[in-house]
Amino acid sequence: MAGLVLHNYFRSSASVRVRVALNLKGLDYTYAAHHLRHGEHRSEAYRAVNPHALVPALELADGTVLTQSLAIMEYLDEVFAEPPLLPTEPGARARVRAIAQAIACDTHPLTNLRVLGDLRTRFGADDAAVKDWIHHWVKETFGPLETMLTGDSATGTFCHGEQPGMADVCLFAQMFNNQRFGVDMAPYPTIRRIFAAAARLPAFDKAAPENQPDAE
Amino acid sequence: MAGLVLHNYFRSSASVRVRVALNLKGLDYTYAAHHLRHGEHRSEAYRAVNPHALVPALELADGTVLTQSLAIMEYLDEVFAEPPLLPTEPGARARVRAIAQAIACDTHPLTNLRVLGDLRTRFGADDAAVKDWIHHWVKETFGPLETMLTGDSATGTFCHGEQPGMADVCLFAQMFNNQRFGVDMAPYPTIRRIFAAAARLPAFDKAAPENQPDAE
Repeated sequence: MAGLVLHNYFRSSASVRVRVALNLKGLDYTYAAHHLRHGEHRSEAYRAVNPHALVPALELADGTVLTQSLAIMEYLDEVFAEPPLLPTEPGARARVRAIAQAIACDTHPLTNLRVLGDLRTRFGADDAAVKDWIHHWVKETFGPLETMLTGDSATGTFCHGEQPGMADVCLFAQMFNNQRFGVDMAPYPTIRRIFAAAARLPAFDKAAPENQPDAE
Repeated sequence: MAGLVLHNYFRSSASVRVRVALNLKGLDYTYAAHHLRHGEHRSEAYRAVNPHALVPALELADGTVLTQSLAIMEYLDEVFAEPPLLPTEPGARARVRAIAQAIACDTHPLTNLRVLGDLRTRFGADDAAVKDWIHHWVKETFGPLETMLTGDSATGTFCHGEQPGMADVCLFAQMFNNQRFGVDMAPYPTIRRIFAAAARLPAFDKAAPENQPDAE
């Protein structure tokens, strides 16, 4: 598909997800950077693209704008079948989506920039308090996730078998936040192993924050 | 499908979603209540069902446990085709999923019981501060959502056309939280209209918090 534009930010975890998905599907895109710390996503110009003023948003060749990283990944998987981001069987698909959502609904929304900023202004949270908050919510999800991934025979090299998919994409993206805020990953050997396996793949590595044109 | 067990709580917004979806699909289920305020979901017994200690979880007849409300809805839609919770065309599916996720990823995770409780213990937030926090995050999503739903020709009686789907389910469920915490819904006439249309349908009404066996 020609003419894809990805509105995103190098460090945004939801942006990392969509970059990995586009890379896995072998799709080229124009990188449109919106500097979140400078509030560029809150401009009138960007609100005309995505009224929610959030990244990522994927602009298709016909001008349609897709928002929400999980919805974008589902779209890419429906339109570009290979390689699949989800397994075939409904129960397996539910398992992969549940892992993805444990990160995308239970962890990431509590640890993204807009929420951390709000904790500072609203409750006077300092760096240590913000860090504690992040560590708490990561642990709440990653503890059970580690147990689940370790104990379930569906787990292989990746979250679900031998091919990377939607769950691995979300796990990979969240790990950069975890690292940046000094989350101790020692209690999560299976998650670390899956992250390392993903990071060795060019589609993932190319999507990492430090490899983007707007990286600082 | 015989033998479905829904682990849930009357007031849990994610539980409301799955109840509506089950009702829309015409599926019977056993209602297993876990009292969140009493911490029943954190028991060893329930952790054996869902290690994440969150509701809802849907136990299938073969003992498989599905977690995460959006993943459960996708599963139900894949296994029980009628009536569909998503439209057919990929772009339309992406739109409906994006609306659902604006609520399920950007709003609800910040306004659920475990987070509000944490704000109280961690930052000493009182009732007024908790209410402000909720109002802020609802507005962040519902403002742009109202604009989007009002301006988009795909919006009809429901978020996407004339049949209720996944977006309406999430919108409906979140409205009970909004009401409970006194969010002023006056600025959102289109959202109110869609909520009212959904609430008139038995599948939705039957799933409302006040109509559950554990309602207080």
